[in-house]
This record gives sequence, structure tokens and C-alpha cells, in this order.
Amino acid sequence: MIKVGIVGGTGYTGVELLRLLAAHPEVELRLITSRSEAGQPVADMFPNLRGYVDLAFSEPAPEQLAECDVVFFATPHGVAMNSAAELLERGVRIIDLGADFRIKDVAEWEKWYGMSHTRPDLVAEAVYGLPEVNREAIRDARLIACPGCYPTAVQLGFLPLIEQGLVDPAQLVADAKSGVSGAGRKASVGTLLGEASESMKAYGVAGHRHLPEIVQGLSQAAGQAVGLTFVPHLTPMIRGIHATLYARLNDTAKNLQELYSTRYADEPFVDILPPGSHPETRSVKGANHCRIALHRPGDGDTVVVLSVIDNLVKGASGQAVQNMNIMFGLDERAGLNVIGLMP
Amino acid sequence: MIKVGIVGGTGYTGVELLRLLAAHPEVELRLITSRSEAGQPVADMFPNLRGYVDLAFSEPAPEQLAECDVVFFATPHGVAMNSAAELLERGVRIIDLGADFRIKDVAEWEKWYGMSHTRPDLVAEAVYGLPEVNREAIRDARLIACPGCYPTAVQLGFLPLIEQGLVDPAQLVADAKSGVSGAGRKASVGTLLGEASESMKAYGVAGHRHLPEIVQGLSQAAGQAVGLTFVPHLTPMIRGIHATLYARLNDTAKNLQELYSTRYADEPFVDILPPGSHPETRSVKGANHCRIALHRPGDGDTVVVLSVIDNLVKGASGQAVQNMNIMFGLDERAGLNVIGLMP
Amino acid sequence: MIKVGIVGGTGYTGVELLRLLAAHPEVELRLITSRSEAGQPVADMFPNLRGYVDLAFSEPAPEQLAECDVVFFATPHGVAMNSAAELLERGVRIIDLGADFRIKDVAEWEKWYGMSHTRPDLVAEAVYGLPEVNREAIRDARLIACPGCYPTAVQLGFLPLIEQGLVDPAQLVADAKSGVSGAGRKASVGTLLGEASESMKAYGVAGHRHLPEIVQGLSQAAGQAVGLTFVPHLTPMIRGIHATLYARLNDTAKNLQELYSTRYADEPFVDILPPGSHPETRSVKGANHCRIALHRPGDGDTVVVLSVIDNLVKGASGQAVQNMNIMFGLDERAGLNVIGLMP
Amino acid sequence: MIKVGIVGGTGYTGVELLRLLAAHPEVELRLITSRSEAGQPVADMFPNLRGYVDLAFSEPAPEQLAECDVVFFATPHGVAMNSAAELLERGVRIIDLGADFRIKDVAEWEKWYGMSHTRPDLVAEAVYGLPEVNREAIRDARLIACPGCYPTAVQLGFLPLIEQGLVDPAQLVADAKSGVSGAGRKASVGTLLGEASESMKAYGVAGHRHLPEIVQGLSQAAGQAVGLTFVPHLTPMIRGIHATLYARLNDTAKNLQELYSTRYADEPFVDILPPGSHPETRSVKGANHCRIALHRPGDGDTVVVLSVIDNLVKGASGQAVQNMNIMFGLDERAGLNVIGLMP
Repeated sequence: MIKVGIVGGTGYTGVELLRLLAAHPEVELRLITSRSEAGQPVADMFPNLRGYVDLAFSEPAPEQLAECDVVFFATPHGVAMNSAAELLERGVRIIDLGADFRIKDVAEWEKWYGMSHTRPDLVAEAVYGLPEVNREAIRDARLIACPGCYPTAVQLGFLPLIEQGLVDPAQLVADAKSGVSGAGRKASVGTLLGEASESMKAYGVAGHRHLPEIVQGLSQAAGQAVGLTFVPHLTPMIRGIHATLYARLNDTAKNLQELYSTRYADEPFVDILPPGSHPETRSVKGANHCRIALHRPGDGDTVVVLSVIDNLVKGASGQAVQNMNIMFGLDERAGLNVIGLMP
Repeated sequence: MIKVGIVGGTGYTGVELLRLLAAHPEVELRLITSRSEAGQPVADMFPNLRGYVDLAFSEPAPEQLAECDVVFFATPHGVAMNSAAELLERGVRIIDLGADFRIKDVAEWEKWYGMSHTRPDLVAEAVYGLPEVNREAIRDARLIACPGCYPTAVQLGFLPLIEQGLVDPAQLVADAKSGVSGAGRKASVGTLLGEASESMKAYGVAGHRHLPEIVQGLSQAAGQAVGLTFVPHLTPMIRGIHATLYARLNDTAKNLQELYSTRYADEPFVDILPPGSHPETRSVKGANHCRIALHRPGDGDTVVVLSVIDNLVKGASGQAVQNMNIMFGLDERAGLNVIGLMP
Repeated sequence: MIKVGIVGGTGYTGVELLRLLAAHPEVELRLITSRSEAGQPVADMFPNLRGYVDLAFSEPAPEQLAECDVVFFATPHGVAMNSAAELLERGVRIIDLGADFRIKDVAEWEKWYGMSHTRPDLVAEAVYGLPEVNREAIRDARLIACPGCYPTAVQLGFLPLIEQGLVDPAQLVADAKSGVSGAGRKASVGTLLGEASESMKAYGVAGHRHLPEIVQGLSQAAGQAVGLTFVPHLTPMIRGIHATLYARLNDTAKNLQELYSTRYADEPFVDILPPGSHPETRSVKGANHCRIALHRPGDGDTVVVLSVIDNLVKGASGQAVQNMNIMFGLDERAGLNVIGLMP
Repeated sequence: MIKVGIVGGTGYTGVELLRLLAAHPEVELRLITSRSEAGQPVADMFPNLRGYVDLAFSEPAPEQLAECDVVFFATPHGVAMNSAAELLERGVRIIDLGADFRIKDVAEWEKWYGMSHTRPDLVAEAVYGLPEVNREAIRDARLIACPGCYPTAVQLGFLPLIEQGLVDPAQLVADAKSGVSGAGRKASVGTLLGEASESMKAYGVAGHRHLPEIVQGLSQAAGQAVGLTFVPHLTPMIRGIHATLYARLNDTAKNLQELYSTRYADEPFVDILPPGSHPETRSVKGANHCRIALHRPGDGDTVVVLSVIDNLVKGASGQAVQNMNIMFGLDERAGLNVIGLMP
């Protein structure tokens, strides 16, 4: 059994980690820390866990965390970078669901996240935890930077085209729609049901923190800098991301369906739908799958990729568990064979 | 492995059965029939099942059904009663998620369901599949009548009080709120998102088919006829039933919290919450639990019981699987250790 | 034109007042105060008002308020009681949408609201602004206490029965369901879309502040103390209250449909539906109507009253405007002929 | 008073027309026809209209329609084209909310709508009822083809750029999100709350009937054929369209904010938001406004236009009334000064 600790489990990625790990056959959940909720039984805050998770939140406890095989950080950015080194030194492997180690260009990170980075050395070491790109590096990694939710949906959707150089890399458009849980569980007026329900809006059009992360991943795949217009939207639902991707083909003869099917043939969590499909976010509600469909309207030179994930699963906690499975040599699907809840 | 067949799996209870059975460790899913969809892969209609269920819907196939150990009927009322006998004779056990065998008084059934019953003999034989009441009878039953969704939530909420004779049985009120999936997956104006979202309404106040079923169960528990006012409401959400129950105590000295905790102490799927709690339907979304809380406002003689279930799980398909587990001597929790999806 | 001021207009009752008053033919909106938002154009916070309301929020400004004919307080409890006297002395009439003057028994108010009342004299003077009960007193009032949202729906539903002594006053049950806007526009975890959507729960079963207010109104109508069990529920929608009321008839011969139709025959905003109806909250979305239907299930001695309002209109701001219309001798419907938004 | 008739008022555009016309100061509503609902009071089907609309649906009645000044067709495509000529000959003006007269190229229309057009002559005569483009022609028109919902939001968003030749007309992208009411009020599985809520999906990516309509309008504005990729999405809400538009600027020096403000300076229902804004669909819920914001992310050569409308108001019935106001020389805002319902 893998001994697991969680730092900061009071948000949505925290409860989702608990849901998945509590049912994971190879995991022994040791502790979950939260300064603000220390002492409170986890299942009091998240009653869905009653009967499955007996732990109470505890004060941050370096000694106990050090006894774990792996520690997940489900914390806001700026937390993991200050705690990681000590744990790594004591042989604990780390999976950070936050943003601290996602962007290799530290200056760029500091610009978007508005603080100084205290551990550029760990940024250099961290492996970007997108298994469909970095599976081998993840296997041996000490420190994983789990991708953001939008970056997961957008990169998985664009990668085959970009890797093969089939589209104009300077003219990419990603129009992404996210459920409100992406904004987290903190009190805020903008995500009240009274504000966010029965409405649709874009946000962060001038610049969103996930933009540099996506650009980094796609540029690496392209072998050159890409130009991306990324517009996220707040959608009146709890879970789900629908990324609608637009690119200009420079080769319209290529069989895109085959390209994608081949690229992801061995991927347990990427599902290429039949031609003409329109994936629904609800088909992955609670599940770790990314479902992708391809279109070329009017047989023209614009390709439209539809990519859906559950932002809290493949976009966060599920992907974190998938990384853990790879790191510890388990079946990559262990604990993740959860069928989407539909309806 | 238990060989399982499903008759009529194109509705919400059908896809939910498939979700649960596909992950059940002791089940081999053999066939699923649907006259209207014969030939269509199940996962085309329910894409959440892609990769988990490879079956296509098939024409009704008595021979193949006869080879199963158990057949679930996820059909409208009036179907199972005409097919059950043949399968029973060939040694197949039957779990009916529909209403055909729920009400022992055949004349009463005919009044509420508007048709003649073709097999009163099977009504007499059928065991009402509420494990918390009939576990022993279920074990040996050939034919199970799964309770309706409202009857499950309301009976589990009232039973301890009724069994002990602690309340006036003539003055029971059940104010129940159900998500829209309770109305099924058939095209209908009233349950369009444009009609049922952002609104709340009662329906069937003059009389709802679940009323005689609840009255039957509570009367049996009371040892006398009970008087129940039952008002169901359509609630703008997909899943979940919240039953708010009112009764007049004839003994206010009794410790109700203890009564309920004791009554359900060994029940794997009934969870009595601590005093002062307010269960949320989302805490059981996708899960087979019934969560119950007790209140006595102002320490008066009115007891208020709050009882929540997922109408498609404990209120239908999950309970059906629980019955199957009991019938075949499995761990009652097999395949049902699904944690509610929250948020 | 009536010169109108608003104190504290940044919440949902504030923006709703603005929506109604901006379209009111006899109103000149003079100022709207908010300490926290002073200087911000109102339409920046509430963009639906762009082109209709040019005001900016201003600092609390006694001099300017004193120049108004009437001032609405759309503030949390505890604010109006400290500002009302000064304005009243200067001849300004006051309509308080908050709770400061609703409950005549000051000790009772202090118990439920957890603070000392600074102006018991004004409580004594204030008129409870339910036009269907107090129209004449409202006409000449200097100070109006607008009813709460639940109390409006519940009282209008029960009043004809109570006034005529047709039900057992000791055994009333009000099971009420409210949209989330009833909890206001303040940042809070419990009313995030991620928490409150796709779920149903009761709250405040042990005691809710609207309970004593309803009991006061019904007791006055009954001429004796009434016993009420009141259970509010949080419903996954923005607007609307559905009150389902249960009472035991002591005279089942009475034609209830006729009773209600007669009682409310001259009421412009109470609509008694035909027998057998089930009112939907959406039928009053944005409108000042209360729609009521009556049922006697199984022709028994339990009467079920279904009463729906928009909590922000008839349950708050619309009723406030209705009071203003009465106070200033206008057509009671002025500015309130808004048809519900459906779908 | 303008004498008004409505043909086919049982859908969402029908009830919305009734909501607006019932409150219109210059309209006398004479009849509303529906073969299927003849005899039923309108307010029985749409209880929000109780007290405002006393009409019952009537059988199609050419004689009575002929006595009207104007007749609205709120019918599926294929109906108006067969009834229009007779009414026009008798001097009745017609506003068609359906698709029969929107596309000038009859062969193109027949391809997309799958039927033969019976009156190409009327297609030639019909005026496309987008006041912001065709106000003068509307004034004198006998026959108005009201634009579709998506075409309204997309064209108003693109027009200033296209008219001025500021973007590459071959590379336009319109990613549009619509509430479910856009699919109408007919029974259908896909728009059940249980199917469409808590999910997001694209549809019609291979080709949607609104594509040729948008291309027609933009090509006319451009003076050349435009190339548009149009992807509509079903969004889990009742009302609202959010169009996110992408185009490549060929002149990045132009002040776009000024361009749009000038272009729409005199338009009563187009509202250009301040720089940096993100319009919400809820800000126009129930209102006839189109709100638009402009972005140029990273100061690059991609312009992003955000355009929101209520699909049932500016996207259908409100725009129809706006056309009527223009045709009859009324204040263009008459009956349309409805403030959006927020929250």
C-alpha cells in the first residue's frame, strides 16, 4: 500500500482526491492537513465521504508527511514551492495540483502569478504531469507539476495536429467553456448560484494564467513558438470543460481521424469519438476520460477539435492519481475506472 | 459470475443499472434488450459507457434471457407482468424495477395504473425489495418488486417511528421533492430544461401512484391503516429526492436519535446523521445511501424527518443491485461502494 | 413625481427595487447610498440597468435623503432602526425592506435577531406592509415594515382559512422552498453554484427568523395563538418561493375555492388558480403576483395550499413598491404591471 | 391602436411575443391561432399571462387575420410562405419570425431547409429585419423576415469590422453558445433537463441553418464573399446567446472601441461596453439589448468580439416588435423598455 498525505484538502480538488483515493485499492490515506479546519472530521465538511474517510483535518505536520510515500498538494499557488524541498529531501515524492511548478520560465511565472518564486531549482526539476506527453519522465520523477484544467483539455485536443506540423502554429484559437467548480470552493460573489447560473460570459480575455502554460506545451510539441488566442468562459454548470479548438490546416489531405486514433491508441484515458460526433461534458462527469471529436466544416481548411474533460478529474485530481499510478508502477487505471455519471 | 440480462435499458434506470453492473465484480452482463433500439451499441446512446459496455441493444430474446441467472426489468409498468412467468418457470430470477408487483391489492393497483393485471398470482409471490424491511424474504425470492423512488425515501424515513407506534398514524405528511430524472428519459414538454429549470412546482396532489405503495408499507409496519398526505414536487435538478416528513408524536420523551441509530445500525446504506443535521441530496449523488436527520422544532410534539436518496440509485437501480447481492449471497455492498459525487 | 431615495442598494433587493422604480411612471430616483461602493455607477455593478439608471452609489447622505418623499431601506437588519427617526422627523416616509420593524414583540425580535433594539417606539408605530391585510393602515403610515419573503407566501396562503377559523390552528405545517437569491448577494460558500446547484436541502429546521413573523401574522388573524411547524428549503434556482401548506379542516363542507376567490377578489396581485391547479414559481418570475391553488387530497380533512411568489418581487421589492403606491395614493399597480418571464 | 394577429403562438417565440405585445401601449391583440390548441385559453398554457391576455387560441382564420394591420408568424419554416400572399394582397403587413424569407438565394434555402420554396417572389420582396442594417427598408416593407437568433448576435458583433474592411473576411470564426430555449418548446429527448442540464456540447458543426444566413449578411456588408466557421453550442441555461467572434485584423492601428461606439451611436438596442468588459447574457435576460465588448488579446492581430443577446427577445420576438414599431412609425422603443432580469 502506498502511504499518502494531502496538504490542503478543503477545496474541490481536495474532496475529489479523497473520493478517488478512498476507493483506490493500493492507497493508504494517512493524513490530510488544513490549518483552518484542523480537528474537523473530513466527512463533516464533505458528507459524501461519510463511511469512506474517517480522517479529520490536521495541522500541517511535516513529520507525519515525511512518513508518506507521496504527498499531494491541493493548495493555492505559492504554498507548495515553500514546502516541497523539505519533503523531497526526506524521500517523499510530490504531486502538486497547484501552479507552482508548471511553467519553466520563472520570470514568466512570476509575471502571471504576481509573486517571486522561491525555488527555481525545483521548477527545473519538476516534470509536467501530462502522461500523454511525459509518461516516461513521470515514472521516475520526484516532483510532478499537474497540468491546469484548461491546459489539459486544450493540449490533448491540439497535440496530434501540432506534433505533425499540420496546422499554422501562429493562428490557433481555443474557445473554452468551464463549469463553475473551476473557480474553486472559496466564498465569492461571482460564482454564487444567483450570479453564475442562467448566464454565460467570457472572462480573462486580456490574459489568463493558463495561457502561458498552454503555449509552453504546444510550443514544445511544435518545436517553435505558437500563437494562441485563448478565451475561457464561465458556464452555468458545476463540472466540465468543453474546449472548442480552431486551426488552419496546411494539409487538407491528411486523414485526421486516423491521426488522432493512432496518436492516442494506447492511451487509457483519451477517447477519440467516431466522425461526426459532438462530445458532451456530462459523458465524463466524475470520470478521468478526455473525449475528442474532429470536424472539418464544409471540407475547408479549418479544423475544429472538440475536447471535453471533467475539470476536477482529468483536469486535476484524476490526473494527479494517474500520475501517482505511473510513479509507483501500478496499473495506470487503478482507482480511476469510474464511469461518468449520466444523467 | 452471475449471468445478467436487462429488459428495456434505454431509460435512466437502465443506464444507471449498466453503470453499476459494468463495475460489479461478480456480474457478467449478457444482454440488454430494446425493441426500438435493437442493433445500436449501448455506448452510442450512453457515451459515458464507452470502454465499459460493449453490448448492443438486442431484440427481446426469450432464449437468451432464459440462460441468465437473473433478469432486471427496467420497463414501464405492464411489461414485466407479461414476461415474468416464462422466465421464472425456466429458473431465472427476476428483479422488476417497474411497478407491476409492488402493490399487493390487485384492485388497488388496477385503479392507480389504469389497466388490468394479468398475473395476480405473481403479485402474491413477489417480495417487496426494500432490504431494510424484507432482507430475509429477498434472499430466497424468485421475483422482486423494487420499491419506487418516493416510497423508498419516505418509508425509510418514517419506519422507526411507525414500527414503534410513536406517532399518530392518521396524520402523516410527506412533502417530497424530486429531481427531474424521476420522470424518465422520454420526450415530454413538461420536463424540458426550458420548462422545468428555474422553477418549482407540486404535482399530483390529488393522487400519485406512489401513495398507495407508501401507505401499504407503512400500514404493514404500523399494524393498522395509516393516513398519509403525500405531495410530490418537481425540483430543478437532475437527481435526488428530498423527503420532508411530518408526524405528531404521542410520546415526546423518546430519544429519537437513538431509536433511528439502533434501528439502522446494521444497515450498510442507511446513514443517520448527527442531531441538528440537514442532509443534502448531493451527498448521495450517484451513491446508494439514504441519509436521514431528525428534528423536533421547538421541542414540540411534531417530529420532522429529513430523508434523502438518489432517486436513480437507492430509489431504483442501486436498490435493484442491492437486492441481487442479497439474492445471490454476495456482500450486500458489492458494486455499490460508490462515493457520492460532490460537488 | 415622488422623490425617492434608497439606502443600501447593492444587494438583490436593491437591484430589484431599481429595476422596478426605474420603470415606474411616477418616481424620480434621487439617490442610492452605499458606503462600500460610493462613487461607483450603479450600472457598473448591475449592467442590466445600463441606459436606465444613471446614478452612482453615494455616501450615506442624510441631507439628501431628507429631501426625498420616501426612502427605502434595503439593508441588513440593525441599520434602519438607527436611521429612521431622523428622517421621519423631517417628514420623510420610510419603507424598510429589512426586518427591524416586523415583529411587535421587541423581546422576541431581540431573541431571534441577536441584538438589542434601539427604537421600540418605532416598532410600535410601524405598519406591517402586507396590503392584503393592512391596506388602510398603510395608506397613512409614516413607517412601513415590509414582510419577509417566506411570511408573504405563507400568510397569503393560510389567511382565508385562519380568518374563518376553518382549520385547527395548533397544527399548521408550512413546507417552503426558496430559490438561492433569498440568501442575498454576499459572498458565501453555501450558496456558490458549486454547492447549491443540483441539490436540495432543508435548513433552519430548529428555528428560522421568519417563524415568529409568520406566527405573529397568523395569530392576529386567528385571534389566538397558532402552532406552526415551518421548514424552509434551499432550492437550486435563482428566484421563487413555493410554499406548500398543510392544515386540518374542522369543517370539510366549506367550499374553499369560493372562500379564497372571494377573500382575494379585489386584490390586484393575488391570483387564485382554478381547482386542480399546481402553480409554478416561474409563472411569477419577475412579477408581483402570488398564485395560489387549493387541494383536498382524497376529499379528506387535510387541506393543502400551494402558494408561489417571486421572493424578490412580491416577497421584497415589488411589495415595497406596492406599499409606496398605496401610501402616495397612486394606482396600486403602477410600475408593477410586469408579466412573469416564462420560460 | 395597431390591430395585431399572431399565427402559431404555442412556442417560446409565441409566448414571448405575447408578453411584449400585451404590455405594448399601441397594440390591440386581436387573435392568436393554433390548430392544435384551438379553444384553449392562452393563459392556461402560459400562466404568466393570467390577467394580461384574455384570448383563447383559435383555429386559423383568414378572415379575421385579414382585418389585422399586421400579422406575426411564429411558426416553423414552411408555414408562412404558404399563407403570406393572401394576407399581403388584402393589405396586411407580415412579420415572419421563422426562416421562410431570410435567405435570398432560394436554391441555398432549399438545400438547408430540405423543402421546395413555394414563393420565391416573396423571398425577393421580403426585407431582412435587422434594423441596425435595414431600418429604412423596414419602414416601408410589407413583409419582414426576422433574423435568426445566432445571426443577430453574430452579425451585430462583426458588422463594424466587416463594413470597414478591417479584418480578413476569409478567416472569420463565430463560436456561439445558446440557451436551450433556442431549440423550442417541442417535446424532445435532447433538451430534457435530465439531458441538457449540467453539460455543454457543440452541435451542427458540419453545418447549421444559420450559417448561410450569417454568411449572406456579412458578405453583403463586406461587398465580397466571406468565409466563416460557425460552431453553435448547447448551453445549460434557458435564455441567452453568447457569441465569441474571432477575426484577424489587417490594420491594428484602428481604435476599435471608437469604431463600434460610432457605428452604433444611434442604435437604441445596441450597447457597446467599456474597454475590458465581459458582457453576461443575464444582463439582457428578457430585454431587447445586444451588449458588445471588444478585446485584442496581447495587443496582437486577433480581435475578439463578445456579443450577447436574449435569443427570445433581440433574437426573435423583441426584434419582431422593434420591426413593427419601425413599420408603423412608432417610437422604436415602444413596448421594449424592459430591463433585464438580474439576478
